[in-house]
Amino acid sequence: MSKKPLILVTNDDGVTAPGIKALVEVMLTIGDVVVVAPDSPQSGMGHAITLNSVLHLDHLTKNGDKHDTYSCSGTPADCVKIAINEVLDRKPDLCVSGINHGSNSSINVIYSGTMSAAIEAGIEGIPAIGFSLLDYNWNANFEYAKPFIKKIASKVLSEGLTKDVVLNVNIPSTETIKGIKIVRQARANWKEKFDKRQTPHGKDYYWLTGVFENLDHGDDTDEAVLDQNYISVVPIQFDLTAHHAIQQLNTWNLND
Amino acid sequence: MSKKPLILVTNDDGVTAPGIKALVEVMLTIGDVVVVAPDSPQSGMGHAITLNSVLHLDHLTKNGDKHDTYSCSGTPADCVKIAINEVLDRKPDLCVSGINHGSNSSINVIYSGTMSAAIEAGIEGIPAIGFSLLDYNWNANFEYAKPFIKKIASKVLSEGLTKDVVLNVNIPSTETIKGIKIVRQARANWKEKFDKRQTPHGKDYYWLTGVFENLDHGDDTDEAVLDQNYISVVPIQFDLTAHHAIQQLNTWNLND
Repeated sequence: MSKKPLILVTNDDGVTAPGIKALVEVMLTIGDVVVVAPDSPQSGMGHAITLNSVLHLDHLTKNGDKHDTYSCSGTPADCVKIAINEVLDRKPDLCVSGINHGSNSSINVIYSGTMSAAIEAGIEGIPAIGFSLLDYNWNANFEYAKPFIKKIASKVLSEGLTKDVVLNVNIPSTETIKGIKIVRQARANWKEKFDKRQTPHGKDYYWLTGVFENLDHGDDTDEAVLDQNYISVVPIQFDLTAHHAIQQLNTWNLND
Repeated sequence: MSKKPLILVTNDDGVTAPGIKALVEVMLTIGDVVVVAPDSPQSGMGHAITLNSVLHLDHLTKNGDKHDTYSCSGTPADCVKIAINEVLDRKPDLCVSGINHGSNSSINVIYSGTMSAAIEAGIEGIPAIGFSLLDYNWNANFEYAKPFIKKIASKVLSEGLTKDVVLNVNIPSTETIKGIKIVRQARANWKEKFDKRQTPHGKDYYWLTGVFENLDHGDDTDEAVLDQNYISVVPIQFDLTAHHAIQQLNTWNLND
């Protein structure tokens, strides 16, 4: 039996994306790899799960492959659930998601399928990391990111993570990455703009577009260090309780 | 011009659900109401947004209706975005989402379309509340919940909420609701079980099912007070940073 760590790899851009290929290449240097990823792109899926339709799972591994690959018809969170329950014969030592084609920094973590997979693994008690490159191109260059990804993943394997915490790692798209910084999620949002069009039959429809707005001028945020060509590492929790707000709410005396 | 507060109502069970009808009835007693809700059920959609397909928006209001109603082909988060940008002529004073047919307590907040709508409104700086009844039936009895919903929504309108905080309100399905408690999100998860079946053509497929597991024995959690027939109110934040984990990560010296 292999003594290597077992690493589950998934993403939200789909099993054929160059980003997941790059991530698998790095993970094969530190462990045994199983890929369970969506059969089609799932960007912006947030933490969606599939309750009202069925899931298909296909074994894609070919002769000569160095690892098993499965595609799943569901969301990134579904992929993690089905991997743990139906594919893997033991709990993985690490789950990595990505490399996403595009940023998941600041508020984007909320909409991110990449991060939902990492969070799902975290809920299941598996150390987990989401990796994203700040380049939306399908043919983005992932090479410069690889040594940093290896370093971070190796460290998580050797040191573990704080309970109920996963990592959101964003990587600037440059050959001159300056280093890695542990930071907080910047306060930001999207200023939406709906692109209104008409069908050939005269009915209005919309495309959701928008402009990203960083509202946070702190120098300890993911946005700030990414701007300076550092990799940002934000520890993320899935206890969403705003503990600091409980006291104010208790002054309302809602039971009077 | 009306001096009444403007209240945006949405949900994830779809515009025709009895739960949103009950919520509208309550909101009409305290403000002007506009409904923008999904045209079909969106349970388990998490914070998904629609990036790769178009959105349709239909004005459903009929003669004699006391408020405007729109259906949108997108997710709950899409509904809030399109309401703010394309439907409403001013920023609403409150956004309420629900009443969800089923619980969104503890870890369910992560998967919840109901809460994603409230969180989306919160990101846009609008005071927001998600309401859920612990009864999955389409014909659940929402009557007992109504006075409590009115009280909580009125209080949010008059007092406001802590910045970047929205409320996750879960309501026990009983006529003997004991009161309202401000609590934290219980630590819990789902023990998944995939129901494996075969198509008529002999191909395997899966239904995602599971059993809810409360791992948290604190008496200050949503699960604990719901068990005692209290309404749970959890303040929720969308800064997911696990601030308590930053120090540990800094000991790793990732730049050495």
